[in-house]
Amino acid sequence: MGSLTRFSVAPLATMTRKLAGVASGRADPDLVIRGARVLSTYSERILADREIWISGGRIAAVKPSGSYQGSSFNLYDARGGIIAPGLVDPHLHIESSMVTACAYAEAALLNGTTTIFCDSHEIGNVMDVAGVEAMLEDARRAPLSIFLTVPSTVPATSPELETAGGDLTAEKIGALFDKWPEALALGEKMDFVQVAMGDERSHAILAAALQRGRPVSGHVYGREFVAAYAASGVTDTHEAIDRDIADDLLEAGIWLFLRGGPPTTPWHSLPEAIKTITELGASHKRIAVCTDDRDADDLLMFGLDWVVREAIKAGMSPEQAWSMGSLHGATRFGVENEVGGLGGGRRADLVLLDDAMKPVNTWYGGELVVEDRKVTPLLDKELSDRYRYPDAAYRTVKLPEKLKLTPELPAETVTINAIRTELPGITLGHEKIMLEAANSWQEHFDRHGLCFVTVVERHGKSDGNVAYGLLSNFSLKRGAVASSVGHDSHNIIIAGLNEEDMQVALRAIEKTQGGVCVVVDGKVTAMVELPIAGLLSEKRVTEVAEEVKLLKKEWDAAGCSIPYMGFNLIPLSVIPEIRITDKGLVLVPEMEIVPLVEGA
Amino acid sequence: MGSLTRFSVAPLATMTRKLAGVASGRADPDLVIRGARVLSTYSERILADREIWISGGRIAAVKPSGSYQGSSFNLYDARGGIIAPGLVDPHLHIESSMVTACAYAEAALLNGTTTIFCDSHEIGNVMDVAGVEAMLEDARRAPLSIFLTVPSTVPATSPELETAGGDLTAEKIGALFDKWPEALALGEKMDFVQVAMGDERSHAILAAALQRGRPVSGHVYGREFVAAYAASGVTDTHEAIDRDIADDLLEAGIWLFLRGGPPTTPWHSLPEAIKTITELGASHKRIAVCTDDRDADDLLMFGLDWVVREAIKAGMSPEQAWSMGSLHGATRFGVENEVGGLGGGRRADLVLLDDAMKPVNTWYGGELVVEDRKVTPLLDKELSDRYRYPDAAYRTVKLPEKLKLTPELPAETVTINAIRTELPGITLGHEKIMLEAANSWQEHFDRHGLCFVTVVERHGKSDGNVAYGLLSNFSLKRGAVASSVGHDSHNIIIAGLNEEDMQVALRAIEKTQGGVCVVVDGKVTAMVELPIAGLLSEKRVTEVAEEVKLLKKEWDAAGCSIPYMGFNLIPLSVIPEIRITDKGLVLVPEMEIVPLVEGA
Repeated sequence: MGSLTRFSVAPLATMTRKLAGVASGRADPDLVIRGARVLSTYSERILADREIWISGGRIAAVKPSGSYQGSSFNLYDARGGIIAPGLVDPHLHIESSMVTACAYAEAALLNGTTTIFCDSHEIGNVMDVAGVEAMLEDARRAPLSIFLTVPSTVPATSPELETAGGDLTAEKIGALFDKWPEALALGEKMDFVQVAMGDERSHAILAAALQRGRPVSGHVYGREFVAAYAASGVTDTHEAIDRDIADDLLEAGIWLFLRGGPPTTPWHSLPEAIKTITELGASHKRIAVCTDDRDADDLLMFGLDWVVREAIKAGMSPEQAWSMGSLHGATRFGVENEVGGLGGGRRADLVLLDDAMKPVNTWYGGELVVEDRKVTPLLDKELSDRYRYPDAAYRTVKLPEKLKLTPELPAETVTINAIRTELPGITLGHEKIMLEAANSWQEHFDRHGLCFVTVVERHGKSDGNVAYGLLSNFSLKRGAVASSVGHDSHNIIIAGLNEEDMQVALRAIEKTQGGVCVVVDGKVTAMVELPIAGLLSEKRVTEVAEEVKLLKKEWDAAGCSIPYMGFNLIPLSVIPEIRITDKGLVLVPEMEIVPLVEGA
Repeated sequence: MGSLTRFSVAPLATMTRKLAGVASGRADPDLVIRGARVLSTYSERILADREIWISGGRIAAVKPSGSYQGSSFNLYDARGGIIAPGLVDPHLHIESSMVTACAYAEAALLNGTTTIFCDSHEIGNVMDVAGVEAMLEDARRAPLSIFLTVPSTVPATSPELETAGGDLTAEKIGALFDKWPEALALGEKMDFVQVAMGDERSHAILAAALQRGRPVSGHVYGREFVAAYAASGVTDTHEAIDRDIADDLLEAGIWLFLRGGPPTTPWHSLPEAIKTITELGASHKRIAVCTDDRDADDLLMFGLDWVVREAIKAGMSPEQAWSMGSLHGATRFGVENEVGGLGGGRRADLVLLDDAMKPVNTWYGGELVVEDRKVTPLLDKELSDRYRYPDAAYRTVKLPEKLKLTPELPAETVTINAIRTELPGITLGHEKIMLEAANSWQEHFDRHGLCFVTVVERHGKSDGNVAYGLLSNFSLKRGAVASSVGHDSHNIIIAGLNEEDMQVALRAIEKTQGGVCVVVDGKVTAMVELPIAGLLSEKRVTEVAEEVKLLKKEWDAAGCSIPYMGFNLIPLSVIPEIRITDKGLVLVPEMEIVPLVEGA
């Protein structure tokens, strides 16, 4: 098992005498990084020609270059590069990248990120507390500082609307806070309408955090909800999608985490939201940047370092932007005495940057883990033997032996409630389509641009719930696509043109106990296997990234008009206008189930 | 007993549903303050024409003026004034003002201060844990939010050098953290040399805070100590006395509390230290302002609001400066979700300011306590019945029946070690003076500008320790002056020209169990009675301020060349060059005791 973890660096309380001795020159540092410019997140300046004295994985002192006169130490020449504190990502979901926490660490370190706050609500939706705790064990064994924002909205809706594997009550959430010291905040409280409306369960969950002095992370759309949401104790959000709501949120006392997503996705809200600073003149001191969700392959290209550079592109100085990527998140969550800056006593989580603000090296707890943009042998070794999830995590796809995946062909002309997919792939349109009697579904599909979409309950909690729907505008040309990552309950969602290919897709996922796949003519042409909770691969992030690239290629070749991450959202019954869960078609925001065939 | 306290406002965890209802317009606020400009400490802007909705003592929402359409509420017309969050003083000692916490509240509220972080190390030096806890009880009954930074350096030196009433070990400090949730940080760790040197006791005390996740407040002079001090886990200081050390401290990860003191005192370090921002370009985001120590009369004139205005005078914008006076301290101590800004859910601790940034009104927890710069009848009533300290606090001056207060007249020519007082009254010079044989002390005094200075142990811990010294340059013209506030051990210090007047002063203090007085011709001409721990008056701050003014008048009339606050520091054996404790004359930094008469 890897030995480089958050715990490799001893608590500061046990190290102050040693560090004071090194800083005073009475003892030798372990490592001196010399000849660096230093990016100060405290003063937002770049200081010329400094050196950093490191002892026991912590910073003993930052001094003018050449200050250290002893002989017994390791010297690293920064050659005039910029040394900055490791990035701190204040909001993300590891599961989005379909890798374990240990595997995520590799990508994070390559991106100069050394601390993350993750909200493991996906695995919570599948495995309840056991899933959250397994991921915490995973996180504790990762070469990365991983803190938890406790999943707050599991399930996303209610048992009437969908069958989830998890049900995180206020009591369970309180117990997680009490048991896990790294549970520093309540995770994104997504049901903002219920919060504003004073829903009892939602507010009991808020209280579980607030009465323990833990801050609450948020997720809110709509300027009309901001005041009530803030008054409910929420003090951050990463969902500010434009300048004006960003400004409202900031004034309501809410920290802003500006989300950068790959530019082709709908997640890239930073360029608009940052205008609260650049156009409206707000201070940036309570504004951070975050990644939120990333495909595994995007994780390697569009990390938090990239988001920082997007903030620079939007008008921030490099010093301000790096502070927004490190110190500000640390301050918001009360860990600024550990990370986010190069102050005395802090963890030696450092990044060496080139002048384009791209990470070249990363030190984690004083250990060089990335050098010249590559994983070092030390880290490579650490990553080769990782946490194994408990057996139960490998048994989460529980299906009946026989399931019919397509609805009966209507015998006469009917009106159906179709789901219209649209780019960018978040909201879905509700379309009523009149189907004149036909001899096959294929005739309907050809005439109206439709395909099947079916959700299969996979937690073993129902008698084999299957719900049928029809997708409009999805443009599937052949076979079927399927995923066990059907947000947020993570039942299995399958789109297809025929029963056979959909069955192949379903059983492929059953066999691997999770995955995303493309099936053509009865054969799986691409698959990312996700055997852990049906959400996570066992592989390293670089391998998963390659698999994802292949999947995307086949996905596009199949004609799918929205990317798989958007496809995975089709069952998420909190976003307008119509979704499909294992219980049927759900209208949002009405939160009503409607039949596929009107009047049926 | 007063009912308006920190606890009058219920915890947010119990109020979120109610506040969400008010913010959403489903329920009426208790109070709407309309027609205000709002100073946002979050964005550092002033927002035009707003109104604040208050419910249950908390802010439900800030909206455009006129938004509230209901009828059932109280309206307060701000008439275009500026509404800002109440000030947060991140570092002060209540005892310096010689009043109780309840009495201090009156002055604070008049100054627009609604939250303070106090370090009660004076009463800790007299009464150990019992004193700290009595002041915490006092604080809990005050109409002010008072948090504790636990005294960290009691006694200031060691039993070899002085006899103190308190001895706060790491164990006792840990127990205070565990018992009192308002103990949010470790108080100023004054023995910075010992910290840098790795002293065991000092680091055990640091560990007691750090292992509980509590931040450590500091006190450091000398750029050479900054690195070791920061590496020891200290993360704030209010002792940055010039630009360059301020800059060093900031870069070492230490929050700066810029101290403003009355301009005639040596405490006014803000104008120099703030140059790290105004001249060196550092961000102000980790910089706050504080008061530290105040005479009771100065407290009413030079409050934290005045310090904020000094920051404006030094070049900060009003919005930045007020943030430095409110949000920044709250952020540093992790209470920004309660105070420091006008965000939803925060306490309705508000100040109405005029355009000169002078407080006109103060609301504490939604209650109007200061209006038109005067205490409201509500607050007046609250202040009339305050906490009474335990009986033991009224019995802390324990003296033998007979004590000789002046040394023997040398029979021949001798060299003595005199203490030379100098303005501003902090450091003291070490002067060796040859006294040729004389017939009386008065002859020596006339010839060399001397007077007696005597320290009497008053904790009942010795067999009546008395130490004799001679003050040079103190310019006492008549009688005697004396104080039971002899920092930090708070033994009784008396300066005088003759045994008789010194005896009168000592016995006056014994009778009242504490005080500062002036005696002329056997009569007490001015006295501030301090019966609580020999440090605090029982009276209201306005009364004590009047007494202090009279005392200062008589003090000056007696000729004393340094003010009484400086006089009180004469026994503080951590400041160069020579001090006097109950054990004798102490050389600093040598930390050696020397005799009054050389070779004696």
